[in-house]
Amino acid sequence: MSLLECDLIIYGSSVITQDENRSIINDGAIAVTGNKISDVGPKSEINRKWTASKTLDSGKSILMPGMINSHTHVPMTLMRGVADDLPLLTWLHDYIFPIEAGLNKELVELGAHLGCAEMIAGGTTAFLDGYMHEDAVGKAVDESGIKAVLGEGFFEFPSPFFKTAEQAWEVMEGLHERFSKHDRISISITPHAVFTTNPDQLVESMELAEKLDVPWQIHCAESIPETELTLKKFGKRPLEVLRDNGLLTARTRIHHCVDVTEQEISLLSSSGTMVSHNPQSNLKLGSGICPLTKLLDAGITVGLGTDGAASNNDLNMFEEMRTAALLQKGILQDPTAIPAQTALDLATVNSADFLGLTDTGSIKPGMKADIIAINMNKMHLKPVYNPLSHVVYCVGAQDVSLTICDGKVLYHDGKHFTVDIETVSHEAEKAVKWALSRLKNH
Amino acid sequence: MSLLECDLIIYGSSVITQDENRSIINDGAIAVTGNKISDVGPKSEINRKWTASKTLDSGKSILMPGMINSHTHVPMTLMRGVADDLPLLTWLHDYIFPIEAGLNKELVELGAHLGCAEMIAGGTTAFLDGYMHEDAVGKAVDESGIKAVLGEGFFEFPSPFFKTAEQAWEVMEGLHERFSKHDRISISITPHAVFTTNPDQLVESMELAEKLDVPWQIHCAESIPETELTLKKFGKRPLEVLRDNGLLTARTRIHHCVDVTEQEISLLSSSGTMVSHNPQSNLKLGSGICPLTKLLDAGITVGLGTDGAASNNDLNMFEEMRTAALLQKGILQDPTAIPAQTALDLATVNSADFLGLTDTGSIKPGMKADIIAINMNKMHLKPVYNPLSHVVYCVGAQDVSLTICDGKVLYHDGKHFTVDIETVSHEAEKAVKWALSRLKNH
Ligand SMILES: [Zn+2]
Ligand SMILES: [Zn+2]
Repeated sequence: MSLLECDLIIYGSSVITQDENRSIINDGAIAVTGNKISDVGPKSEINRKWTASKTLDSGKSILMPGMINSHTHVPMTLMRGVADDLPLLTWLHDYIFPIEAGLNKELVELGAHLGCAEMIAGGTTAFLDGYMHEDAVGKAVDESGIKAVLGEGFFEFPSPFFKTAEQAWEVMEGLHERFSKHDRISISITPHAVFTTNPDQLVESMELAEKLDVPWQIHCAESIPETELTLKKFGKRPLEVLRDNGLLTARTRIHHCVDVTEQEISLLSSSGTMVSHNPQSNLKLGSGICPLTKLLDAGITVGLGTDGAASNNDLNMFEEMRTAALLQKGILQDPTAIPAQTALDLATVNSADFLGLTDTGSIKPGMKADIIAINMNKMHLKPVYNPLSHVVYCVGAQDVSLTICDGKVLYHDGKHFTVDIETVSHEAEKAVKWALSRLKNH
Repeated sequence: MSLLECDLIIYGSSVITQDENRSIINDGAIAVTGNKISDVGPKSEINRKWTASKTLDSGKSILMPGMINSHTHVPMTLMRGVADDLPLLTWLHDYIFPIEAGLNKELVELGAHLGCAEMIAGGTTAFLDGYMHEDAVGKAVDESGIKAVLGEGFFEFPSPFFKTAEQAWEVMEGLHERFSKHDRISISITPHAVFTTNPDQLVESMELAEKLDVPWQIHCAESIPETELTLKKFGKRPLEVLRDNGLLTARTRIHHCVDVTEQEISLLSSSGTMVSHNPQSNLKLGSGICPLTKLLDAGITVGLGTDGAASNNDLNMFEEMRTAALLQKGILQDPTAIPAQTALDLATVNSADFLGLTDTGSIKPGMKADIIAINMNKMHLKPVYNPLSHVVYCVGAQDVSLTICDGKVLYHDGKHFTVDIETVSHEAEKAVKWALSRLKNH
């Protein structure tokens, strides 16, 4: 019997597939052809069926789908740690806004390069972004080899970026047009929040999302102060404003959902609205704790995200997964809450749904080859009773040894193949001086 | 002017000293002679004053005191991930107890070697232990070069380990005698908990702690079920039992303190009792959340610990520090709660007090040379606005590049110099088969 030909076979001591049965294969292998997975199974079986021009065997390692970050502002990686432990309004008005007001396309692109490099090294292969100058983010994503759904953010018009609605919609259509044929990049419509926009604008932007057939994402119900601001402005809670304007739909993606009522949970569920859970950012900003278990029990699709590095302070999806699992157990005083499998689902299959991607998040024939390996030859990962438990409760982003996105090796054993990390690091340190000078002048 | 001679000079782009002023020195250096710090200051100043037979310069790096783990059961590292996401009693009775009942000295020593190796690689230089066969733990600590305060645990007599009190006290005095001259090892008296011992035994054990002049540590107020069990057995809450038996003193060390009243917090404060905060274990076991901010506001010395790897599932003090800071901010909806400096204090100077060690936890002339370096040349640590913020909110245990304990380099750039990690890893994987066979027979 002649062997089938593929481009790459990757071997691992375990393969966590995240397929429908949540199969875990011991001594497994994955065959990749072009940007797709051709086959996955026990090593012996794959070797009997396939031959490859290239093989990768990292010894004791776990292979799994790349993590998918359902909420970030990747250019803000440039502001990692610029201000911590401050009241929200001081943080925003005295640090984040003065720096953001001076950002140009070059700095946005630099921040995106840095954030993409961090995500790639930490085993994240796709993310949903929201920021300004998203064309510059798209350039960084294109070059770095990761996947992204871009979101050009907007506030009430006129804003520093868009004088009119027409101008904003034009930019978004242009962004869509520019990346419509790109293998790894798509877009979403991205109003900032209910209290920073107005309902007409939200409705118009949803029409645009429908026209382009892309997701519509918004920060919503992040904190009690946000609810209070919204009540003051509209006489309604944030999710009520969305509901009353017909904006809770299967196209809607909500970030945070911390301050949410039982009735609102039902609404999210019945409308097919999806939620992104961002536990570390919610804790760090003092926003509170999302009732994750209730959202999942209601049948809502919940993805997992880090939010920006200015409020996290990293883009580490392993920590985010661990925090999601531990926090619910502690709050509910129930060690069975959010078991490891559920936590991993948030970061992979659920986040893929959140991004609107149907061909990533699991390791199955026909899916895109978005695959990472964990180097298990570390003392904090020994011994191994259960690889799934290790991924959720012990592994760090720094234990990732291999990141493959769309069939291409982006990172292996500490080496980046698509990002010039020397230049990016050097430019990022220069940007610190620039940012601090803006704070002084403020 | 002739230069002073020392054994080692270490250079770093920042030195977080944790001295009384919490000084952070840019482009700093530390001079080490024997097992002590001789000097610390700006690189230029140290180079003007000192000459050394050996120097270590890891480029962009943060130097800081080694982390101090105030609560663990280091042999349980062998049970990392053996059972997760289970109700507490199932976890204990169906997994932990059946394995523990079969542990011998060799397995305890193996688990301790593994845990010590993990701590060393992760930047921890001292820990407070509590388990059985602590002489075997002492052997591993002696060989691995880390520091420990050993605690031979005991339950109500007769137990599988001690038939009588006399026998128990004799073992503890023997352990004290054996390590009384050791540079890096001391002991503590270690009753398991109020509900698993009886007051007479607790009082007698405190007399022994006084006689030997060592700390007296106990799990206490860990969860509501513990309080209920104690109320049933004694008609009092756990801390009330200690109070009524004169067991809340400056010698007393309490692990957890999750289910604690305002009145009990006052008692802890006025008596000088110290507390070990173990947020990840408290979350994972569903015990709840310690009111850390209240304890600190009451003036209680609170150290930071991981608890055992069977309920964490690692001995990673960086994550523990981050969880402590984020959790209080989220619970209190206050982003200013537990700022980075406070979080780092928990893991260094406070934990040193908790262990009863006066010569570690900060980088000052005369202190023991317990020093670690963080490799800042990683994408998730760029750029740097504030090294302190990075240590608490971004750095992982895997970013530690150098661990020096008592003046000796134990770990550098991924290499262990005191632990045979190949053998330990191999034996630990063999122990998995043994442990699983015990679960099957159970
Ligand atoms: Zn956000
Ligand atoms: Zn414990």
